[in-house]
Amino acid sequence: MKHQNDNIRPVIWQSNQLHLLDQRKLPDKETMMVLEKAPDVTQAIKDMVVRGAPAIGITAAYGVVLAAHTAYAADPDNWQTLIETDLQQLAQARPTAVNLVWALQRMRACFATITGNPISSLLKEADLILQEDIEANYQMGEVGAALLPQDCRVLTHCNAGALATGGYGTALGVIRHGYAAGKISQVYADETRPWLQGARLTAWELLQDNIPVTLLADSAAAALMQQKRVDWIIVGSDRITANGDVANKIGTYSLAVLARQHGVKFMVVAPTSTIDMNLDSGDKIVIEERSNTEILTKAAQGAKAWNPSFDVTPAALVDVIITEKGVLKQPSTKSLLALMN
Amino acid sequence: MKHQNDNIRPVIWQSNQLHLLDQRKLPDKETMMVLEKAPDVTQAIKDMVVRGAPAIGITAAYGVVLAAHTAYAADPDNWQTLIETDLQQLAQARPTAVNLVWALQRMRACFATITGNPISSLLKEADLILQEDIEANYQMGEVGAALLPQDCRVLTHCNAGALATGGYGTALGVIRHGYAAGKISQVYADETRPWLQGARLTAWELLQDNIPVTLLADSAAAALMQQKRVDWIIVGSDRITANGDVANKIGTYSLAVLARQHGVKFMVVAPTSTIDMNLDSGDKIVIEERSNTEILTKAAQGAKAWNPSFDVTPAALVDVIITEKGVLKQPSTKSLLALMN
Repeated sequence: MKHQNDNIRPVIWQSNQLHLLDQRKLPDKETMMVLEKAPDVTQAIKDMVVRGAPAIGITAAYGVVLAAHTAYAADPDNWQTLIETDLQQLAQARPTAVNLVWALQRMRACFATITGNPISSLLKEADLILQEDIEANYQMGEVGAALLPQDCRVLTHCNAGALATGGYGTALGVIRHGYAAGKISQVYADETRPWLQGARLTAWELLQDNIPVTLLADSAAAALMQQKRVDWIIVGSDRITANGDVANKIGTYSLAVLARQHGVKFMVVAPTSTIDMNLDSGDKIVIEERSNTEILTKAAQGAKAWNPSFDVTPAALVDVIITEKGVLKQPSTKSLLALMN
Repeated sequence: MKHQNDNIRPVIWQSNQLHLLDQRKLPDKETMMVLEKAPDVTQAIKDMVVRGAPAIGITAAYGVVLAAHTAYAADPDNWQTLIETDLQQLAQARPTAVNLVWALQRMRACFATITGNPISSLLKEADLILQEDIEANYQMGEVGAALLPQDCRVLTHCNAGALATGGYGTALGVIRHGYAAGKISQVYADETRPWLQGARLTAWELLQDNIPVTLLADSAAAALMQQKRVDWIIVGSDRITANGDVANKIGTYSLAVLARQHGVKFMVVAPTSTIDMNLDSGDKIVIEERSNTEILTKAAQGAKAWNPSFDVTPAALVDVIITEKGVLKQPSTKSLLALMN
């Protein structure tokens, strides 16, 4: 099924190689990085060649295919033992998004039933993870957009788009669908310091699909709400805990507090692969701190920096979580348990 | 009187010329721009060679001296008429900070009593404006710091320091005094997009004076408060209206909302030259929108931008305004009237 405003695929398997759209170089250059070894996949995730929780999971799944290829070539009888180092490294590439661990577990679950060369079975599973992610996004896009009023003005943060997923996007899937349905009259995007995912990636992918977008400094979002220029904030997530707390790009919590204060609605769009029922609340999530140089590039020499990549929004500030399995209004441990069982 | 941590003067009159520390080039280069004509002063204010409400006022005052020099040389009998174009242009250099208009009015008030060459009288007045600003900052620094608890952790936004004033600073004056008094254990500064006044200027001037500073992305301030890592937010202002509403750098309003939500105290430090009793509330303040290129430099081509330079924090969110004439806790029209009359 082909949807409107859907032209971008950041993770592609082709000719036994993993092709990643190098997101560090966007919007200036569209370059595909071609990978053949699992350690290179780990490095690419660390370096943010690919980023976004679902896209990281999908990439790691293909990383397992490459790891199995190497291990099986080295010793066909012991590939499941040999592959462990690569799997461990992939799992530790980045700490906050749970989709990475989820995808690796799903790939590992195939091992038991495999006899002989594992590549075709594992590739089939990785392809399925990718395809299911895109389908989930189509579905969430439709369901999420249905909740928006006519002439809705939306604000998104970071990039929860095609680039962050298999394709179409989570938050941007809702925006793509809502825009195609004529319900969205204005799309705002925070530039999203320090990596500028909003200015570089979200703007790029929306404009690729002819959806106009207005960027603003992250700190201007409060004034946008104060001036009643936005109706819904729509974001993705890197991990949702069992009680509905939402880890997402730094600045998301700020938006959620401000939204509640200004009567602006707050929507989180994430596939169930983002939900971590093993953690009961958001304060248990490991928040990655990235290099201080992201903050200090133009700063006075000698300054220190605090550079957390993510923050945690308490469930109480979330009006609705959209998943491919259902919609959670005012999410709670109870409603998450019901959804996931 | 020389104070601790006080080594920076951004506006200097020397050899009949106005010397401005070019703040666009900091922290990489310390360059003084030397000006001899009032239109060049207007341009320097527009281009943000000098910025910060009190510093703009002081600069404009010296601009009047240069304008008078030109006008008097052209026609000694008609200099007060000839000077008008320069005064108008200076007044319109930037719209939000009221200190600019305040300084020009104060300079103009001298005209009536001047006979003969006006330069020495006007220079005396401009020097007085500068000197009074620095003295006000010393005083506010002491009074503001007295309100801080021991081991206080503070967060500031933009640059309300020596660079934004005649010297010593408003918000940073309080931080300088509090740090020298051993009351401040941690100084955080928002990097302050898009112009990075925090990363470039505040960090530079605090480090010049050996005060350690930790920078963070503007959008991380909410997480800092959520994690209970900050006690007071201390900022300057570009205009305070008669009811106590505070215009300041974009992002200030966001901090004020978040501070109230997290039980963090919110202090505004500004000389009375920043108070505009002619506007009854903040919604009447003209908010400058600066060039979209500030937002779009690294953005995808075709994106639009919304780039307001300032926002307005309602008086209700301000715990205290520190002025050189007194302290206003929970500022109101009544307390501002009492202070200003």
